[in-house]
Amino acid sequence: MSPSSVGGSWTPSSAVPEGVALMSDEDLVAAMDFGKDADGLVPAVVQDVVDGTVLTVAYMDAEALRRTLESGRTWFYSRSRREYWQKGETSGDRQYVREVRMDCDGDALVVLVDQHGRGACHTGERTCFYRTLGTGPGVPAP
Amino acid sequence: MSPSSVGGSWTPSSAVPEGVALMSDEDLVAAMDFGKDADGLVPAVVQDVVDGTVLTVAYMDAEALRRTLESGRTWFYSRSRREYWQKGETSGDRQYVREVRMDCDGDALVVLVDQHGRGACHTGERTCFYRTLGTGPGVPAP
Repeated sequence: MSPSSVGGSWTPSSAVPEGVALMSDEDLVAAMDFGKDADGLVPAVVQDVVDGTVLTVAYMDAEALRRTLESGRTWFYSRSRREYWQKGETSGDRQYVREVRMDCDGDALVVLVDQHGRGACHTGERTCFYRTLGTGPGVPAP
Repeated sequence: MSPSSVGGSWTPSSAVPEGVALMSDEDLVAAMDFGKDADGLVPAVVQDVVDGTVLTVAYMDAEALRRTLESGRTWFYSRSRREYWQKGETSGDRQYVREVRMDCDGDALVVLVDQHGRGACHTGERTCFYRTLGTGPGVPAP
């Protein structure tokens, strides 16, 4: 039976959960400073809520942030394609949002997510930051 | 006895360790794409190596990255002041670098650090991302 022949609502064959709208603090949302960048964008650091891995850095404007808060899934703005995109919409590797944090001067975001699918990177890696260009011993804090 | 009267090398009264130059992969350094941004900058996500907290997002160009790799401490470029600055040089809240990672398309960095002093934020908070503007249940990965 094809989906179109079903009388009730259509359910896709590979059902995926919807996102859940976030509870948001509108005063803080309004305090974001998108104007510092000519394109109205701020970097959004997407971090795995389970183990803290930084998965990717993408960009949001006020509209992408609003869509993220309302859908409970990550929306970004592509600087190269000049369009909004929702993570996982084509790949299936969705990011469900647990928390959005803003920095002290309102020009950067951290987005804590449940990462579904293979991961965040279009290469198939879990994180976009899979290459190390420098290592050192550091100096452990006293 | 004042420092200037000591015959040997002068040791500051509150001695702080020097940074240690990183071992770097020059092919990867050369693969960074600083040209995508008009000012030649990429966002650098500074993450606490101990617990994974995202401490701050700042900006590096090729020169700031080079200084970071050579000094073992974080150097950034200030978009507003249009100058290089080394984290902790005035505050004392230094960041000693353990690892620098680049993303898939070479236009973002993650810098894992030993954070010394009070923390990374000029407000006195440990992380610049101390405010939460949205929370939700997420959807735990299957």
